[in-house]
Amino acid sequence: MKRTFPNSYVLGFALVFLAAATAQASDPLPSWNDGKTKQAIIGFVEDVTQEGGPHYVPPEARIATFDNDGTLWVEYPMYTQVLFAFERVKELAPQHPEWKTKQPFKALLAGDMKTVGASGMKGLMEIVLATHSGMTATEFAQEAGDWLRDTQHPKFKRPYVEAIYQPQLELLDYLRANGFKTFIVSGGGIAFMRPVTQEAYGIPPEQVVGSSVVSEFKIKNGKPVLVRMPKIDFINDKAGKPVGIYEHIGRRPILAFGNSDSDMQMIEYTLGGEGRRLGLFVHHTDAEREFAYDRKSHVGTLDKALDQAAANGWIIVDMKKDWKAVFPAR
Amino acid sequence: MKRTFPNSYVLGFALVFLAAATAQASDPLPSWNDGKTKQAIIGFVEDVTQEGGPHYVPPEARIATFDNDGTLWVEYPMYTQVLFAFERVKELAPQHPEWKTKQPFKALLAGDMKTVGASGMKGLMEIVLATHSGMTATEFAQEAGDWLRDTQHPKFKRPYVEAIYQPQLELLDYLRANGFKTFIVSGGGIAFMRPVTQEAYGIPPEQVVGSSVVSEFKIKNGKPVLVRMPKIDFINDKAGKPVGIYEHIGRRPILAFGNSDSDMQMIEYTLGGEGRRLGLFVHHTDAEREFAYDRKSHVGTLDKALDQAAANGWIIVDMKKDWKAVFPAR
Repeated sequence: MKRTFPNSYVLGFALVFLAAATAQASDPLPSWNDGKTKQAIIGFVEDVTQEGGPHYVPPEARIATFDNDGTLWVEYPMYTQVLFAFERVKELAPQHPEWKTKQPFKALLAGDMKTVGASGMKGLMEIVLATHSGMTATEFAQEAGDWLRDTQHPKFKRPYVEAIYQPQLELLDYLRANGFKTFIVSGGGIAFMRPVTQEAYGIPPEQVVGSSVVSEFKIKNGKPVLVRMPKIDFINDKAGKPVGIYEHIGRRPILAFGNSDSDMQMIEYTLGGEGRRLGLFVHHTDAEREFAYDRKSHVGTLDKALDQAAANGWIIVDMKKDWKAVFPAR
Repeated sequence: MKRTFPNSYVLGFALVFLAAATAQASDPLPSWNDGKTKQAIIGFVEDVTQEGGPHYVPPEARIATFDNDGTLWVEYPMYTQVLFAFERVKELAPQHPEWKTKQPFKALLAGDMKTVGASGMKGLMEIVLATHSGMTATEFAQEAGDWLRDTQHPKFKRPYVEAIYQPQLELLDYLRANGFKTFIVSGGGIAFMRPVTQEAYGIPPEQVVGSSVVSEFKIKNGKPVLVRMPKIDFINDKAGKPVGIYEHIGRRPILAFGNSDSDMQMIEYTLGGEGRRLGLFVHHTDAEREFAYDRKSHVGTLDKALDQAAANGWIIVDMKKDWKAVFPAR
């Protein structure tokens, strides 16, 4: 008889666990708090997948595009790719004695970030091109992938590849389970993201659209390779995002998700098609669990989009209110 | 008793039909004649899909790229897209009075193909840009798709969208059934092919890589659209093919299929990776069922690739010998 109590305790625990699992199975977005935003997303997906319904969209046209920095992974206090470029400058410095006297490299190596910042977009581009070109495509993929897996975000004490948003992972899964094809459409470098998008988001490299440098086909040591050149090919940002979508995907998305004014054109383009459409922005409102920034931020500026959201039917996702969890459990 | 004979006749017919159907089901490439080429293809697919085998390739890395003109659809006696451009010049002429005096438009409108030809690549580019820009992405897709569905190939008396090779359709299906993702990688215009690639080949627009013009995001009559500009963005041909593959797909294919010297770099790049790889060229040897052309042809020149095939392990597919049927039954 002594065993009855512990056994029923075990059974009770199992039942509670089962009930929790069932509740979760019936909620495709467990890390999204109940409310208007979650309802809007689920209502949209139900509408476009309802065969015979007025808003039905065939599976092949269910294209969803997501910005990356600030929408799928953390971009604050500085874009991940910029941090990568800064660290690469330090690593590559021994091979570049000329950097000792050349700005903005000299300032960066001396830790003088004020001078680096004063060099503006031109200086930043020099740093990015110097660290993102000269090697083969395969070599760069290795460098970027290793760095993203091995380097920790200072606030979250987790690798950058895991400084990604749990509610968005659930949304990506939910969309794919409903026949959507999910794409990244980012101002970031296409080759910087691709090495990790499958493991991070379940998005294969061929479904990543981003900024790029010119590359050239060459035979190097008898091997056919692609060499990355120190020249910008395409900036996939702002009005470049719909262009990148046309070039890479060739259809207009029916759902687009961003987090800054740089995503406005992608979302305008998405909502400009016929039928049911959805456009969303992450609003970073959670200083405690993540960061709070918007109109005056030096990264991910969200200003005009906030003003125009209501008039355009754009959904502003309030991180603090709408997200039950921010990061995946480790 | 009189009915016995007819009934057994019907039964016999049914059995023969069933046997034929079974034979076909067991042969994934019924329009390919048995022989070395077919064996090489099937052997390759079996090798890379055999789990635990020495040549196993995980499904996500099973990328196959196909040239289009002369590899998937007919390119002779003239590239389909060039014929489309020529016809569009005639249709658009009333809106372009300046063409009456401007070469090569004047010659083209007068049917003076010798002068058009003498204008060379520069003249051809002028014709292509004049007919492929100025409209929105959606408008151009409509024009190209309609034309490909409505215009007949003079020799085959079937629309261009159906002047496609049956053995290749079977190969595409066979590859996809074995977990491959199939892509078009063509020197032709990406926006010219995309409207029909799904219906013709089962390849969605986002898996088409090709040449492109610059496009711009604009608000036109209050609608967000992409406008095609009269400027070449990228020529996806020769050494441009590996670059297009890197940009759009982001991984090295393990199978590539072309038909001309313009496909050599794509096939070199494909075979330059680790592990089991396959590179093939269609050799147009069938003057009766299709066309016979190679080294001296003005389209789809196959010359250097023929010389270098054996040394490089490239497979030359002999259309006359290797293909049981050329076009799909109508």
